[in-house]
Formats: sequence, structure tokens, C-alpha cells
Amino acid sequence: MSRQPATTAAGDELVQRYQGIRRHSLALAEGLSAEDCQLQSIPEASPVKWHLAHTSWFFETFILLRLPTPVAAFNPAYAVLFNSYYVGIGPRHARPQRGLLSRPSLEQVLAYREHVDRHLSELLADNQLGADALALVELGLNHEQQHQELLLTDLKHHFSCNPLLPAWRPSGPDPAMPEHNRHAPRRLPLPGGLVEVGHTGAGFCYDNETPRHRVWLEPFALASRNVTNVEYLEFMLDGGYQRPELWLSDGWDAVCEGGWQAPLYWQHGDEGWQVFTLHGPMAMEPAATLSHVSFYEADAFARWAGARLPTEAEWEHAATRSTEVEGLHDEVWQWCNSAYLPYPGFRPAAGAVGEYNGKFMINQMVLRGGSLATPPGHSRPSYRNFFPPWARWQFSGIRLAWDA
Amino acid sequence: MSRQPATTAAGDELVQRYQGIRRHSLALAEGLSAEDCQLQSIPEASPVKWHLAHTSWFFETFILLRLPTPVAAFNPAYAVLFNSYYVGIGPRHARPQRGLLSRPSLEQVLAYREHVDRHLSELLADNQLGADALALVELGLNHEQQHQELLLTDLKHHFSCNPLLPAWRPSGPDPAMPEHNRHAPRRLPLPGGLVEVGHTGAGFCYDNETPRHRVWLEPFALASRNVTNVEYLEFMLDGGYQRPELWLSDGWDAVCEGGWQAPLYWQHGDEGWQVFTLHGPMAMEPAATLSHVSFYEADAFARWAGARLPTEAEWEHAATRSTEVEGLHDEVWQWCNSAYLPYPGFRPAAGAVGEYNGKFMINQMVLRGGSLATPPGHSRPSYRNFFPPWARWQFSGIRLAWDA
Amino acid sequence: MSRQPATTAAGDELVQRYQGIRRHSLALAEGLSAEDCQLQSIPEASPVKWHLAHTSWFFETFILLRLPTPVAAFNPAYAVLFNSYYVGIGPRHARPQRGLLSRPSLEQVLAYREHVDRHLSELLADNQLGADALALVELGLNHEQQHQELLLTDLKHHFSCNPLLPAWRPSGPDPAMPEHNRHAPRRLPLPGGLVEVGHTGAGFCYDNETPRHRVWLEPFALASRNVTNVEYLEFMLDGGYQRPELWLSDGWDAVCEGGWQAPLYWQHGDEGWQVFTLHGPMAMEPAATLSHVSFYEADAFARWAGARLPTEAEWEHAATRSTEVEGLHDEVWQWCNSAYLPYPGFRPAAGAVGEYNGKFMINQMVLRGGSLATPPGHSRPSYRNFFPPWARWQFSGIRLAWDA
Amino acid sequence: MSRQPATTAAGDELVQRYQGIRRHSLALAEGLSAEDCQLQSIPEASPVKWHLAHTSWFFETFILLRLPTPVAAFNPAYAVLFNSYYVGIGPRHARPQRGLLSRPSLEQVLAYREHVDRHLSELLADNQLGADALALVELGLNHEQQHQELLLTDLKHHFSCNPLLPAWRPSGPDPAMPEHNRHAPRRLPLPGGLVEVGHTGAGFCYDNETPRHRVWLEPFALASRNVTNVEYLEFMLDGGYQRPELWLSDGWDAVCEGGWQAPLYWQHGDEGWQVFTLHGPMAMEPAATLSHVSFYEADAFARWAGARLPTEAEWEHAATRSTEVEGLHDEVWQWCNSAYLPYPGFRPAAGAVGEYNGKFMINQMVLRGGSLATPPGHSRPSYRNFFPPWARWQFSGIRLAWDA
Repeated sequence: MSRQPATTAAGDELVQRYQGIRRHSLALAEGLSAEDCQLQSIPEASPVKWHLAHTSWFFETFILLRLPTPVAAFNPAYAVLFNSYYVGIGPRHARPQRGLLSRPSLEQVLAYREHVDRHLSELLADNQLGADALALVELGLNHEQQHQELLLTDLKHHFSCNPLLPAWRPSGPDPAMPEHNRHAPRRLPLPGGLVEVGHTGAGFCYDNETPRHRVWLEPFALASRNVTNVEYLEFMLDGGYQRPELWLSDGWDAVCEGGWQAPLYWQHGDEGWQVFTLHGPMAMEPAATLSHVSFYEADAFARWAGARLPTEAEWEHAATRSTEVEGLHDEVWQWCNSAYLPYPGFRPAAGAVGEYNGKFMINQMVLRGGSLATPPGHSRPSYRNFFPPWARWQFSGIRLAWDA
Repeated sequence: MSRQPATTAAGDELVQRYQGIRRHSLALAEGLSAEDCQLQSIPEASPVKWHLAHTSWFFETFILLRLPTPVAAFNPAYAVLFNSYYVGIGPRHARPQRGLLSRPSLEQVLAYREHVDRHLSELLADNQLGADALALVELGLNHEQQHQELLLTDLKHHFSCNPLLPAWRPSGPDPAMPEHNRHAPRRLPLPGGLVEVGHTGAGFCYDNETPRHRVWLEPFALASRNVTNVEYLEFMLDGGYQRPELWLSDGWDAVCEGGWQAPLYWQHGDEGWQVFTLHGPMAMEPAATLSHVSFYEADAFARWAGARLPTEAEWEHAATRSTEVEGLHDEVWQWCNSAYLPYPGFRPAAGAVGEYNGKFMINQMVLRGGSLATPPGHSRPSYRNFFPPWARWQFSGIRLAWDA
Repeated sequence: MSRQPATTAAGDELVQRYQGIRRHSLALAEGLSAEDCQLQSIPEASPVKWHLAHTSWFFETFILLRLPTPVAAFNPAYAVLFNSYYVGIGPRHARPQRGLLSRPSLEQVLAYREHVDRHLSELLADNQLGADALALVELGLNHEQQHQELLLTDLKHHFSCNPLLPAWRPSGPDPAMPEHNRHAPRRLPLPGGLVEVGHTGAGFCYDNETPRHRVWLEPFALASRNVTNVEYLEFMLDGGYQRPELWLSDGWDAVCEGGWQAPLYWQHGDEGWQVFTLHGPMAMEPAATLSHVSFYEADAFARWAGARLPTEAEWEHAATRSTEVEGLHDEVWQWCNSAYLPYPGFRPAAGAVGEYNGKFMINQMVLRGGSLATPPGHSRPSYRNFFPPWARWQFSGIRLAWDA
Repeated sequence: MSRQPATTAAGDELVQRYQGIRRHSLALAEGLSAEDCQLQSIPEASPVKWHLAHTSWFFETFILLRLPTPVAAFNPAYAVLFNSYYVGIGPRHARPQRGLLSRPSLEQVLAYREHVDRHLSELLADNQLGADALALVELGLNHEQQHQELLLTDLKHHFSCNPLLPAWRPSGPDPAMPEHNRHAPRRLPLPGGLVEVGHTGAGFCYDNETPRHRVWLEPFALASRNVTNVEYLEFMLDGGYQRPELWLSDGWDAVCEGGWQAPLYWQHGDEGWQVFTLHGPMAMEPAATLSHVSFYEADAFARWAGARLPTEAEWEHAATRSTEVEGLHDEVWQWCNSAYLPYPGFRPAAGAVGEYNGKFMINQMVLRGGSLATPPGHSRPSYRNFFPPWARWQFSGIRLAWDA
């Protein structure tokens, strides 16, 4: 799946990178109890313990168990317990029941991680892996980073279901209040034309970012920054959640059935709007970057604002074109008005890892950018994140676009 | 919504066209009892009586009630009963309960149609309508034709739920067995490049076909004809419905939850495969054009066949480019691997008819072409039909494409 | 199932009775269109046409097709279409899909009725039926009468779903305003002791009314009449639907999930409470007997009133004991705080008609009495009606009881 | 609720009893991890941690917080978190979300228990509680014992959802294999007549066991022991789960919808039937007492066996009448064909504890006896256990009865 495996990296350097990324997962779980790590509040959000185990399963399954002389399975039962959705690998424990696995304990999962890390570190240090295996290591590390963000978004949802509203840390990755949020956004004009999108260069990418291909874009403009809480509040105060004409038909159904009146995690109380964050409940910060809205809300807000959402090609083109377009990546994932579909000429990666992306190319919308919870260096302009249009538990916000 | 209203048509000619199209709806319902016309088997499929009333409501609401001197409402209650989804017009009777309207009777609905037709005919004959109203007449006639096809696809589903398996007519619009189905399909090569798609020319189109715009296409090939029953049967016999690796993830879920083993309306019995049609059950005809598959099935079949589905831009470009590309329109609607989204620069038509198309641009896939149930002249190369990926009760089939 | 078949009745008399009851079903459907007769608004409520056909199926299946020389089936497909729940007879068309049977037409169903009636009349007139068959005729006639009431309660529900609120007749069987409703109810004291309940005497009864058996009753009192609308309104105005402490736990869940605020068919508008009836919407009549409440509501009302619901044994004992206890039968069915369970020594009737009652003896509560929609002479003090505690579409009301 | 509070017990004795019962709850949780204690597999089954907290909440809420000088709340948030269903006390954390409470931790819950125990022990030792409070202590202890059994039945279900099939202990309370299971059961004849049932004597009872009252019983016979696995297997081999005529209508629906083919926890594998127990999976033991069947299955089995289920009055009368009727209590709870309804003259206990039993008297069937998981001395002949007819996760079995 990695198009340019990092085979030239010296073993030591790679070991350090491997261990650094793996350690970061543990660092995220630090301070959480075994009970915290087992929570599962909705089928879509997995327990922290499961994230820690599944990412290890990935390395074990695709590398350790497939070596010419395979490493003995740490526990054969894990093959089923921690397989997420790889039908090609075998049966899977049902996703909605991940929170029912008190066994293995968190301690055993940590031992599993150590086992995997010990073997991987050795293999990497001794340069024992061929190009294919190294490409899978690279994929596994990116996979681990994806799960680091999911670990936090999922945990946030789990904790939000506890009336005690626990905090993960005294301070956390949300909310973002960059300086540019204090000023009105500018419209960055882009001339369009026949442009190229999709991954390029020597670094890692997922198969869904390929092949690089040409796209014709009409001239357009992109907002210089993401929508803030106070801007979204205006929409709410203008009856945004009460006016069906602003919404897609399915979006309006979601508003009515879900009783949506505000972004996820907003709660109105005696002292105004409160927002639940990873460091506990806090007063809604007007200048903070808006987060936790669905595609439906993003689309309705854009319509209300006399704007629209960008397509993913527009977004990517803008992100790569000029230094003036900055700060696209680092606050919230930004909903695009693009369905998550294969690029022209797309071929899934060979083998079971071909299930990584391709089979989800339906019923989802693309998000671009990244968030405060995205590990530094993980995302890139060609990165395609994707979620169903109703999803709100990710760090998902809004960047507006306009026809020229 | 019509971009080029037919204002130059002589009144008489337009009256005849109006009456011809309106009469055709009645002709489709001929031979059906009032009981048949009231059936509603699923929320998505409306009763024949409702189709007959709703299409009349459309003309009454958007023209007769908005004349400088409005025609008195035939029955004020119909404003709610026969409004489909126009929030801008007012409240609506719930869609799943359309089959519960024994009143008004079919007879009263036919009187409603006569009332509307008498007034419209007069207005048209006397050239009393301005350009805007004439554009709405044109829209109403195209709307009527859309419902003529829905009337048949819906009726087919309603009848399929009766163990007596009633026939609409001794012979009907399905299945199609064009001569070219007897031969292997050819791959028609298309060079791609920067092409234009979207409606062009003086005729009517829906707002969703506009604006015409440029799209870059890589070289590709399109099958010279649609997939046949026997070709799909091969896929079935090769375990098509038992092999998750052939399916999108959501598609496989649909297979499992719906217990899908064959296209809708196929039933295996002692004498092999039977297919329920509008003229009753009949033996599955191997050379007939395959119909009643979902996007999921179309996609899985294409994957199995080492091909893919075309994008809507590819399809449209091919359909307009060369005389060699023939027969695209007239057998079944063809699933495209394109989500139903707005074209660059899309603006919904002004007023309540702006709800006609735009608000449904999410969670649906595009179909192109037309079917034996599509009124002649109704479809065109730029025509965008759309249904959710799980829908199977339309005359929806498969045309394969390949990368060059 | 009949314990004392009416074999001694002269043939002519029986023919007349048979024809009278059968004609009454038709009389109830008079004035309804074929479309009206096809309506099915909820799975629990069947179309009028289905009632007319099913009652005929009962006579055909259990008598005509089982004669030494069976009468040829009117239409073999009806065996499945109009079998309600007799597993012993064979497969059944799914209950929620009864409204999807536009074929056979109402006309054909009426012909079916004529066919059955012609043959039955002949057999009865000529005294050709043995005791077993005559007992089944008796059962069939009582079955027909049960469906006469269901036909009306079901039709009422179907019509209530049409915003036009159609009327069955200019005047109908609801509501009841007997003279005694103008006065406060009295508490009729009953001494209790070892009493007998269950059917006795020579007349027909269902198997579920047998065997007659002894029950010990503590002294109690029964209200001299049923609860009226205005009495129930007091409960509502006292916060009846907002106070969980008045309700059974499952009842409170039903209130919350169903959004119950009043009895079924009550609607509050500009001019106060309106009630939908079989003769259309009308102003709520304070002195009318309350109807269309669930067991949950009956139970909560009784608790609020410092009373309780009677047991079925108490009710039956009171109904048979003294002339002072009058008017128990003829206004609404009265919820008892008795689960529908077999009497000591109960044996279901032999053969497929043994499914008539016994297999429903779980998850239902008993109602006693009768309603304005019950055919005269059909009910009796030992008659056990039964519905789930949430059911509200029957003519079900409340009679209070008290411990002595 | 206790009719005869144990006020005469010397303080010391009561302290010891209190501490003994409370310690037993902890003993049951011994060896379980904090993760194990948080599992919740279905809404009906609570986490072990929640049981430990809720039982403490009961003592705190009804005694410590209501003292003339109330003990300060251990944590005010617990009022909501650990209130089960006492609407009179205030809001409650939603039952299906009890498994989402990683906070408070198990450790904090244990500290909560210590806090409650310290205060209660002092109060009891110093004879500081009046009769009402002592009655509530008695109720709280019986409540604790009820939850001790639920803790085990719930844990068993939670563990059964983990493919690793964890064991609670090397040996556990199931299954029972008393000597009498080796022999055919006898039919113990009971003459019936006017008998008394309901609680009597000086000991504790729940309000639902009162008042003691007279019931008329026809002569009947009761099996001398409960049904065994091998006896139930005969029913299965005779097509028990495939023959609708053996089942109540709702029971047959449960079989079809739930795909029931055997009792809960039975699994057929290569080596025959395996049964999941609290000490892990083991081979099905033919002579063991059958457990984990629903009322529906008990009823169908009885019908197949030419017998019936006893009524609760029959069961209680038999259990108290003669020394020959022994062993009724101690193996499995036995489904009775009696709906859980109030006894004649029943009055719920005063105050919020009146919600303990009365509001659940609908839609449930009575079970009598006790199980190996019932704390010794907790049950008694007049004890009324109750669950919905579909419930299978309790230690529920079958004792047959016959009409004389």
C-alpha cells in the first residue's frame, strides 16, 4: 500500500521511529484506568484497550505471522478478537461487542504490545525484513497513527455518556483557538483549470490517494480559515436548526430524528453554552474553531452563509498551490462535498490489506485536513479521511468555498 | 427549471402535447381496479392513485393556484394529501401512509384530473400563460412522465407482494431482449480528454443537469450493451452472493441482512428460475437484459467481471460522442459509480420547485439511460436518475466499463 | 368447542339464523367502497374485505372442505390468503400484508361469501350435518360475530389515519350515553365467598370459558356503571399522564414512548377536545362512557381514583349474581386485572380449532362485558375477551372495583 | 415492607448478620477484575460493580440520608448513578448505560461500601435505629441477597459474550445434580380445597407476598423433582423446537425470531452438547437439573410431556403441606403458569420502597423456589420471583404438574 517503502532507512532509525509511534499510543492511554479503557458507548467507537490490541494485531498478523519463520502467535484467540474488518484474514468478533471483552485484561494487552514490539524492533534493527514487509511496517505505523486519533475521539464519546463527565487530561487537544480566528476570514481566489490531485512524491500514502490524476476545476475561492463557534452560533440563532429549506432532505430527517439543536457535545445550561471536551466540560469559546458537526450541518451552514463546501479536489489543489493557503491541516477535519469514491484507475493494494480502504467507498463523504488529535506528520494534502454524513463524533468542522 | 421554455410552440400544439402526456398516465392505469390503484407495499413506492393525483396537484399548485386570477382549489384538502415533499408549499401527508387514503376515491381523483386538464387546456389553447408559467407546464409534463415510470415500477412491487402474482397486462415493458444481446458485448474505446457534460441545446432539462461544464476523462472503454440475465447467472453460479471479497462493505451487509441470493423478482422453483414481471411470472429468459439489481450488486458483478461501472461523465460522454455507441438508453437504467452531487456552479431552480432535485443530492448514486418503462422522448444523454445504492425495484441494470 | 351443539334446532330456524348473521356482516360493510374495504393501518387491524373473506374461509375450511363429499374449493389460493393463524391448517399470508391484497377484489370476495352461504344454507336446510359439523357451524357463527366487532374497530382505526377523517355512517355505535351516566356511580357490595365461574347452561360458549370452576373471592364492591369521559378528564387535568407514580412501570414506558396524553382518538383543538368516531369527528361528550383506553390507562386511572380494576372472577360473579348489577355488558369492554390464562382443567377444543383461543393465553389481559359494536346476544357473563395491555383501538373502558 | 421488623434482635447479632450478608457480596466479586466488574452485555443485566454500588445506595438512601441527623452523602452524584428505578427518589442513570460508568472506579465503589457499612454497623451496634429504620435494614439485606443472585446470573451472561468463555471460579453454583435426578420423578398427589397462601409467621417478607389469603384449588399432582437435561433433550430430539403446535403463539414467535434450538448456554459442537457455566464450558450433564429456559420453553415442554406448569398457589401449597414434598427450593427457579399480579387486598409498602414490587405487576410470570445461586435462607415457600416469559438468563427450570 505504501508506494515507496522506506527500505533505505537505516535499521536503527526505523526502530526508533517504530518505537516512538508505538509509545505514543501508550502515552495517550496513560492515566486511564483499565475500566476507562474498556468503555464502548456506540458500535462505531471502540474501546481504548481494543485500539491498543488491534494495532498490535495488525503488525502481528501482517508481519510476524507471515515471516518465513513465523513468530508463534502470542495468543491464537486474538486472531478473531482483534481483527477489525479483514474478511480475507478470517472471522471477527462483532464490532458492537468490543466493549464486552474484559478478558484479555488491559495488562495482557500491554504484554501483547510488548511481545509485538520486541519482535518488530529486533527485525527492524537487524534489517531482516524485505521490501514488502517494510512496506507493511510503514502501513502499520500509519495505521497506528490513525488509531491514535480514533482512540481520542472514541474516548471522548465514551466519557460523554457518564454523567460525571470525566476528563482525560487537565488539558487536551480541543478546542483550537488560532490567532487567525480573531479576524474575519478572507476568500482566497483560485483560478482552477486542469490540475493534478492525488499523492505524489516519495513518502508514504494510502492506496486511496492514488493514482495521481488530472481534474478540471472551475475558478473558485476558499475561506482562509475554518468556521468558528461564534459564526456557527449565528446560524443557530437565525433558526438554523428549525428551517428545513436550509437542509438536504436526509439532513433534515437527521435533525428531526436526532433532536439536533447544536453541535455534538454542546449543552445549554444556566450559564450559557457548555462544551464537553477531553479536559472536561468548559464554557463555549466563541473564537474557537467549530468542531463535532456532521456533513449535514456543514452543508446547511454553508447554504445559510451563501457559500458551499469545497470539493476534495478543490481543497487539495488549494492546499498545495500557494503559501498563502496555510493552516488547512491542523485544527479540524473539513467536510468536502465529495463522496468517497475511487480515483480514476484506482487499484486496491494487493492481499488482505486491500480491504483497508477500497471496500468502504460508498455512503461516505470525504474530509480533508487534520485535527489537533491527528499525530503530527500523519496527514498531508492528498490525505482522504471519510465518514458517513451523519457522523459527529470526529473533530470535524467547516471550511467554506465559493464559485468565482 | 426548464432552461428554454417552449414559449414559441403554438397553443394548439402544446395543448395536444399536454393532453397526450396526461392521457398516457390514464392509459397506464387502464384495466386496474380502484383496489389495485390503492396498493402501497413499501414506503418508497406510492399507490397508482396517488401518482395520478400528485401529478395533477403539481399543475394545480404551481400554475392554477398561482394565476393572477387563481382557479378555485378543486378540494383544499388535496394541498396536504398530494404534496410529495415540497416543504416550501406546506405540510404533507406522511409518505408511508399514502396507501391509507381510500378517500378520495379513484373516481374523485379522476375528476380532479379532468378539472386540472380542462383548465390547463383552456389556458394553453388561449395562450394565456406567460413564460414562467409555460416553463412550469413543461416541468409538469416531464414530472408527469417521471411518475409514469414510477407508477409501473411501484405497481410491480405492490403486485409482487400478492401470492396470486397478478399481471398488469398480458404483455408489458419488461424484459428487454434486443438482438445485440445474442452476441458478446464489445468494448467501445473512448479517448477521454477534456470533455463537456451537462445539458446543452434548446430542449427541456432539469436543473440538476446544469450547468454544462468541463470534465477531464482518462481513456476508457464502455461495453456495447448491458449485462444479460445469463451473464449475471454466471456470477451467481460462481458464488457471487457468497463471496464477501467481491462486495463493498455496505453491500455485503445488505446481502446478509436482506438474504439476497438473486436479483429482485427472481425466484427459484422446480422448473428453474422464475421472474415476476408486469405481465405475471415467467421463466427467466437468459438473453434478456438484466434488471432489478442494486448498485451493490452492479458493483460486485463488475468487480467479479474484472471491470468496473462507468462514471456518469464517462457514460454521458460516450452516449453523445459517436454513432457507434448506440442503444444506451432504452433497456434499463444503468448504475454509475458516481454519487448524485451538484455540478460545479449548480443553482437550484427558484422557488418551491427548487426542492425538485437539489435537496436529494446525498446518499444516492446516479443511473443513466432509461428503460422500457420510460416514456419515449423523456430521457436524454444528460439525464440524471438517482436512487440509493440498495434500491432494487427500479428497472436498473449494469453496463460495464474498463480503464483503457 | 361448542359444548352444547344446537342440533335440536329445526333446519329452517338454523338457516335463518345463519343467514341473518352472515347478512349482518354485509350490512356493516354497506356504503363502503372497495377501496375502504382494503385499508390496513396497523398489523393488528385487518381490512374489511379480509374480515369478510376470512369468516367465509372459516366455514369453508372447517365444514365444506371436510364433508364426506367435500364441496370443491371456491379458489384453492384462498386457503393461504384467508387463513388467520391456524398453523394446523397450513401456511398463511402474513398478517401485516393483508392490506396488499387488491386481488381477489371485493366483488370476488362477495361471490365467495355467496358460494359458501349457498352451500351452508342447503346443508342446514336439509339437515345434512352431523353434531360435530353443527357445532362447528355454531362456532363459525360466533366467530363471524366476533369479526363483526373487529371489522368496526379496525375500520375506525383505518379511517382515523386519513386526514379527511371519513365517517362510516352518519350515526354509529359510539359513544354511549346511558341515563345512568348522569348520576354518580354507586358501589355495589358483593359478599364474595366460594363462588363458581365459567360457562354454564345449554348455550354456546368458547373453550376458554370452561370448565366452570370454583374460585374464592374476598368481599368487594363494584361500580354500578363505567367511567365517563368527564371523570377521565379529571384524571387528565390532575396530571394523570405526567405522574409516573400512578402507573405500572411498563405503562409509564408506553406513555412516554407513545406520547400518550389522552385516550386514543381524542384530539385537542381550538374548540376543546374532539373525538373521532365511526360517524366522524365530534365534540367530546362529557357524559359519554369512556372508551379507547389501554389496560395501562385503566389501571392508572383506578389507582388515581383510590380504587382498582376488578378481577375477571369478581366481574363475572357480580354480573350473574343480582338484578341490581345491570348494564355491565352493553357499553364498553371493561379491563380486568386478570391475565388471560387457562382455567383450572382447561382443555383446548380438539383439532385445528383448538388454536382458536388456547395459544394466545400469554401476555394479554382479560376484558369483560361487551360494547355497542358487539352483536346483540353475542356476549355473556362468562365471555372472556382479551387484548395486550397496550391495546387501545378496541371499545375498551373502565369499571372500578374496591376491596370491601 | 417487612411486616415483622427484627427490632428485638440484639444490636450485636444484627451487626453480625448485616456484615455477613454485605461481605458475601464482596466474596462473590472476589477474583474478578475491575474490567470484569464493569461488563454489561444486555440492558436487563447489570455490571457487578453496579450491583455492589446500588445495594449500598439502597442503605444510604433509605437509612443514612434519612436519619434525624443524616450522614453526609458519600458522593451526591451517586444519587442518580445508582438509583435503579425509584422514581420517587429522583432521576436515574439509564439502565442500558450502566456499563458505561468507568467512573466511579471499582475501588471507589468499594470505598462507598465501606463508608455505608461503617455507618450502618455503628447505628446497629448502638441500637440507634427505630422500628421503621430497622425494617428498612431488613429490607435492604434481603435486597442485597436478591442482587447477589442477579450478580451471578448477570455475570454469567456477560462472560458468555466473550469468545474466550471466561470462568468465574473453578467451580460454581451450576449445575445441580441431586441424587433424586437419577430416578424417575413421582407424581405427588395434592387434594386441593380451600387453602391459604401468602406469607405467614414472624419472619421477613416482601410486600408482594401479602396479604395471606384463601384460594380454592382443585386436586392436582406435582412432580417430585425438576426436569433434567436429558428429559429436555428428549423433547428437543422429538422436534420440540420445530413443532408450532406445542407452543404458545408468542412463544413460537420467540423461537423463530431468536433462532432458539436449545436452552440458553447450550452449544452443539463436535463432541456433543456443551454448556457454558460459571466455571466455564463443560459437557452437558444429562442428569443435571435443566436450567436457563424461558417460560415459553417450560410451557411447550409441559405440553409435549402431557403435563402442565403448576400455578403459584399450587406450588406454594404443595411446598408447605407435607414433608414428602421436599427439595422444591434449592435447584432452579420454577416457572409457574401464573401471571405476576397483586394478591387480593395487596397494598404496596408506604413511601418510595412501595416501588420495589408493585409497579412491575404486569407482563411477567411468576417463578417459585430458588436456585443454587440464591443465598441460603433468602427464599421461602411464599417467595414470588418474576420475569418476562421470554427471559432465559436466570437459573430457571421446570417442575411439572397434572390435574388430578
